[in-house]
Amino acid sequence: MARRVGGRGRVPFARDVLKSGWDTDIRIVDDLEPPECGEGQVRIAPAYVGICGTDLHEFLGGPNFAPTTPHPVTKDTIPITIGHEFSGTILELGPNPTHPDLHVGQTCAIQPSVYCAQCAACKAGAENACLNGGFIGLSGGGGGMSEQVVVPASACHPLPANVDLDVAALVEPLAVAWHAVDASPIANSKVAPNCVVFGGGPIGLAVIQVLRARGAKTVICIEIAKRRQDFARDFGAHHVIDPTKHDVVSTAFELCGGEQPPDLAFDCAGVPSTIETACKVIKSRGTVVNVAIWERSVPFNPNWLVFREAQYQAVLGYQRKDFQGVIRALGDGSIRPKGMITGKIRMDRLVEDGYWALIKEKDKHVKILVDVEAR
Amino acid sequence: MARRVGGRGRVPFARDVLKSGWDTDIRIVDDLEPPECGEGQVRIAPAYVGICGTDLHEFLGGPNFAPTTPHPVTKDTIPITIGHEFSGTILELGPNPTHPDLHVGQTCAIQPSVYCAQCAACKAGAENACLNGGFIGLSGGGGGMSEQVVVPASACHPLPANVDLDVAALVEPLAVAWHAVDASPIANSKVAPNCVVFGGGPIGLAVIQVLRARGAKTVICIEIAKRRQDFARDFGAHHVIDPTKHDVVSTAFELCGGEQPPDLAFDCAGVPSTIETACKVIKSRGTVVNVAIWERSVPFNPNWLVFREAQYQAVLGYQRKDFQGVIRALGDGSIRPKGMITGKIRMDRLVEDGYWALIKEKDKHVKILVDVEAR
Ligand SMILES: [Zn+2]
Ligand SMILES: [Zn+2]
Ligand SMILES: [Zn+2]
Ligand SMILES: [Zn+2]
Repeated sequence: MARRVGGRGRVPFARDVLKSGWDTDIRIVDDLEPPECGEGQVRIAPAYVGICGTDLHEFLGGPNFAPTTPHPVTKDTIPITIGHEFSGTILELGPNPTHPDLHVGQTCAIQPSVYCAQCAACKAGAENACLNGGFIGLSGGGGGMSEQVVVPASACHPLPANVDLDVAALVEPLAVAWHAVDASPIANSKVAPNCVVFGGGPIGLAVIQVLRARGAKTVICIEIAKRRQDFARDFGAHHVIDPTKHDVVSTAFELCGGEQPPDLAFDCAGVPSTIETACKVIKSRGTVVNVAIWERSVPFNPNWLVFREAQYQAVLGYQRKDFQGVIRALGDGSIRPKGMITGKIRMDRLVEDGYWALIKEKDKHVKILVDVEAR
Repeated sequence: MARRVGGRGRVPFARDVLKSGWDTDIRIVDDLEPPECGEGQVRIAPAYVGICGTDLHEFLGGPNFAPTTPHPVTKDTIPITIGHEFSGTILELGPNPTHPDLHVGQTCAIQPSVYCAQCAACKAGAENACLNGGFIGLSGGGGGMSEQVVVPASACHPLPANVDLDVAALVEPLAVAWHAVDASPIANSKVAPNCVVFGGGPIGLAVIQVLRARGAKTVICIEIAKRRQDFARDFGAHHVIDPTKHDVVSTAFELCGGEQPPDLAFDCAGVPSTIETACKVIKSRGTVVNVAIWERSVPFNPNWLVFREAQYQAVLGYQRKDFQGVIRALGDGSIRPKGMITGKIRMDRLVEDGYWALIKEKDKHVKILVDVEAR
């Protein structure tokens, strides 16, 4: 067992402080001891690991999540193993297992979020907003880009037999979208909502799919890039508006039948030009759901919301119910995201065919997966 | 009847276009015909009229509400009668009255909002956000600063016997606060919320009183001006924080018992420095309620909300339920706002002792009322 881990290794994501600043050091390490699998834990053999924008941010401009001092939950410091969007198979259960749905050989999607269980957010049941929280594969605690990783049993979501391990690596980004839709006030409304999704990147496409699965009446995607417009249609957007060619507010209103502006806008772009349009495209008492993480302050006039008595809802991450919701939808076929996988690469090609491909050929790719077992 | 109106007159709020821009022309007109009282209408003898920031904006920098082309609902154009926060006594009911709670001699608070009943907002039951809406006394349709005004019967809210006509002129600003508290997600929660109110002006003080009446556990007011700090305490704030002397976020946290940050923040200030603090003072999944109208865009980082998964709720105006809620609370003594009346003036002193007093001695006053019958 030690040999297998050693032979293939984990990929630690390390940074060294240089005089001029941070320099990213990503390498495969072959000499690591296999982690111990204690009580309440499960040993996983990762199968597929998705690369996401957060990874690219760490690579290009970090450390952001990567802990330079011991992380309050994982206790780890860089170098750490990367990979937070992953699936795998259970190799071993720790002593006295308490999760009867987990057994050796079970395939799982891993929920990487970790939290302290002690802060005000955790005590209020908002552990996704834990003040000390983090993610396996970003904040320490192991990661998907390894031959073995030990995670809490509660992080393992068993897959139905008809959900493949590659698709299961998409559960994490889909859970972000599920959480965002679930947090919108009319997610459980009896009336099917008209929705506008700003941005056709991975999260925008995930939101489009979840909205369709949850019965949205109309889904309109706002996207400039031709390739992403096609993806948006492929994944269920009824309409796509190119904001450089059409007025978003009036066009969306017409596309909703000319009677009622959209109920909901999802900002999955997070650029200054979208926030005003998102506020103005919705109906009176509509909601803008912000799914994006922002790099800096932007000009905002609260009156955009005031005159339609609207709300701006921020969402963050996901919870168990979101992983469960996505896996249920994958099982019953109401979400079919396989087409999001635009590339599968070997672990030793991570930087060139993964990171740099996503940076340089951004519009061509949705998700590139690392196939951990591929040689 | 004609003589009485003519003898005392209405105060039209007129503007003439000069070559250099707008110039405010406020005058008492003595030669007006008394308005007709048609079906569904009620003739009111106004008693007291409050002056508010919106009036000052019209006076100093308008026209904003004052219609320079026919208003879509009132059909009026400047010059118009002013006064939108008013109480009065019913003089006459139009033919075939349909409101059994209205009779000649009944004292009322007047709900000045008018709406089109046809736009998407109105159809969605959000007539307070009507795309064509306006206010009696700002948008035409008569106004409180007159010896007689004819309003829709539906605008008249009968007063209990123990609510005086001067206090009844405060119902309108209190209804703004009632609506804001009512729109906050935990207004009807079983757990009494901890609340922070930014700004101790008339609307901030109204929000403080409504929060106390609705059972808030802790109400903290953020205010710089000494006089307003005293008012805030008088009207029920448990604590006042001067943001120039103390860190608002950590102080509010301590004042809430050091366990849980505030549940709700109400922004009644609408200045750039408050929006960030309001977002950061609340708990995970808390809500910032914006009650202010803004003059321009301000820097805003959605991440302020993202990392606590919080929401920003805009509110606008009020609805019938809000007038009813305030009048009920005045009747049962859970709101006692008489101390907000810091001056009563004659109609012919409106500009000097009303507008200019509020502009020059801003912190000394909360509400100045025009006593319509005073000579
Ligand atoms: Zn990710
Ligand atoms: Zn926590
Ligand atoms: Zn007012
Ligand atoms: Zn309307």
